[in-house]
Amino acid sequence: MIKQLEVVRREHLKEKPDMATLGFGTVFTDYMLSMDYNPEQGWHNAVILPYQNIELSPAAQVLHYGQAVFEGMKAYRTGDEVRLFRPEENFRRMNQSNARLNMPEVDIDFMVDTLKQLVTLEKDWIPTGEGQSLYIRPFVIATEAYLGVRAATHYKLLIILSPVGAYYGSDHLLATKIYVEDEYVRAVRGGVGFAKVAGNYAASLMAQTRATELGYDQVLWLDGVEQRYVEEVGSMNIFFVIDGTVVTPELNGSILPGITRKSILELAQHLGYPVEERRISIDDVFEASQAGTLQEIFGSGTAAVIAPVGSVKYKDQELVVNNGQAGLVTLDLYNHYTGIQNGTEKDPFGWCVKL
Amino acid sequence: MIKQLEVVRREHLKEKPDMATLGFGTVFTDYMLSMDYNPEQGWHNAVILPYQNIELSPAAQVLHYGQAVFEGMKAYRTGDEVRLFRPEENFRRMNQSNARLNMPEVDIDFMVDTLKQLVTLEKDWIPTGEGQSLYIRPFVIATEAYLGVRAATHYKLLIILSPVGAYYGSDHLLATKIYVEDEYVRAVRGGVGFAKVAGNYAASLMAQTRATELGYDQVLWLDGVEQRYVEEVGSMNIFFVIDGTVVTPELNGSILPGITRKSILELAQHLGYPVEERRISIDDVFEASQAGTLQEIFGSGTAAVIAPVGSVKYKDQELVVNNGQAGLVTLDLYNHYTGIQNGTEKDPFGWCVKL
Repeated sequence: MIKQLEVVRREHLKEKPDMATLGFGTVFTDYMLSMDYNPEQGWHNAVILPYQNIELSPAAQVLHYGQAVFEGMKAYRTGDEVRLFRPEENFRRMNQSNARLNMPEVDIDFMVDTLKQLVTLEKDWIPTGEGQSLYIRPFVIATEAYLGVRAATHYKLLIILSPVGAYYGSDHLLATKIYVEDEYVRAVRGGVGFAKVAGNYAASLMAQTRATELGYDQVLWLDGVEQRYVEEVGSMNIFFVIDGTVVTPELNGSILPGITRKSILELAQHLGYPVEERRISIDDVFEASQAGTLQEIFGSGTAAVIAPVGSVKYKDQELVVNNGQAGLVTLDLYNHYTGIQNGTEKDPFGWCVKL
Repeated sequence: MIKQLEVVRREHLKEKPDMATLGFGTVFTDYMLSMDYNPEQGWHNAVILPYQNIELSPAAQVLHYGQAVFEGMKAYRTGDEVRLFRPEENFRRMNQSNARLNMPEVDIDFMVDTLKQLVTLEKDWIPTGEGQSLYIRPFVIATEAYLGVRAATHYKLLIILSPVGAYYGSDHLLATKIYVEDEYVRAVRGGVGFAKVAGNYAASLMAQTRATELGYDQVLWLDGVEQRYVEEVGSMNIFFVIDGTVVTPELNGSILPGITRKSILELAQHLGYPVEERRISIDDVFEASQAGTLQEIFGSGTAAVIAPVGSVKYKDQELVVNNGQAGLVTLDLYNHYTGIQNGTEKDPFGWCVKL
């Protein structure tokens, strides 16, 4: 395992974009990290170099067989202070994804150290506006030029950085409208749903397109076996506040084990909310709505942070939750969570890694 | 839709490999086809150019979200005569895969014409030994540099060519050993199992690795809902000869609609064998084996053509079929099928497209 990192400087830095109008994932910083893997050397050739196109063989396995995993995390800046949020958790999950796709594991400590160096170098790219941050995208792709179907021998890991605003546009606490997908299936137990692998996202596009066309923001996926139990939203895990309890579907092999999900569960408990991880059917959700015990719904994810859900459409029924507004529990969790990330609030969990 | 094709010649042709020792998918020819898509121009910039690396943005969506589909087909040469096998079927299926991943369709006639030109140019690369052919790999990848999860706006289609021998090594009629996977799941109805999309193959790697470690050649996948019904083998569809009838699992949304599968069904009927497409459970297979009515098993696919199966392992049971040898029906189908492909036998179906 390599322990040294080369840095190749660029001659001219890019012009920074207008940070006031940042979208999501279109602007990239001056540098990226690149690292290679082969069976003889393991991970090697770790280098921070100018952000640039990469060259691949047209037979590279990632292009044919989708052997690719990724992670998403964020860096926050307040004044001169820069924080990473639980970066070791992301590299730990990357290794779970790597294992599921027969890909080599990375050294978590080395990756966190390397990321710290990269983000330090790119500190000026971290926007400081409300809801803004530097989005960090580590990913691993199979680069071997071979058309047989088997795990590749050669890989490339890259980390690219993008200054971002709120994922769902300017008003990050505007409640989203959710469409429950009852035909397409995202994942099933025994599959790769719990891993952050490329193919899961390709498989989700049709349903997302249909939901958008019907006027909804996001898809809520049901389980692949019975198409009855709530799993997750397109790019978020999902939480319900039912009768004062914060409920989220239990991890079952087809749900992504979100780091925001895990952190929200810890934070909610810390704040004194009862929490439950359990199987919850879409019928349960509609029954709770009719019984008047469904108080709030929100999604959680690195990109979206905490996003209130205002309504849920399932077949010919549609429920509105909390009059289509962000609820008190959602707002309470949002405020504490972003406060910890931004450093305006104490971090009782030791989640933030300061640079 | 573009109707013209540019050809960029290379100065020096590569040295041809030793055709006697060809493997699968490691050697590529002198040229490839490249074509681009954007919303303004549709598919454009179709060019035959020297086989070479491609350049991608590190944010290209294929690398993150697996928006990629592919096809596999073969060209055969006998003397000066070159044949493509049902190429329009492959581009039709590519369009089904494209549609499932929200990707733009291609013009089938244009693609077949273009492929003919490419293969004509590369005619000398088509090996003529027993079981050899030129493997043709068309694929489409999302190239847009954007980290949001939605269908990309920009794509690249490439066709690369590789002279190949038998997929399972030198003796293409040696019976394979099959391991029935009862934990991992490849696909489920409502998912993308019926489409030839990259992520399906990444999801299959762990099971294949386990099967290989246990001494088996291929994985037999069961359905994702009940994990009970036979679906397909790693890179092939599967057929059973039970009591004189050629049986294959019916297409159900999670099984790949193989072009070899479809052709074998047509050929078997033509030869007078009763055929059935129906749901068949793994228990049915073992019961037929015990009852003495399971006569043969074989797999079918472009890469493997027709591959006899000698044994099937499921949990703690293992059945041997036809004493672990290729059976008479399998051999009869193999001989006629490869005869039609090679042009040594009449083609009553009009499957072959001569160049």
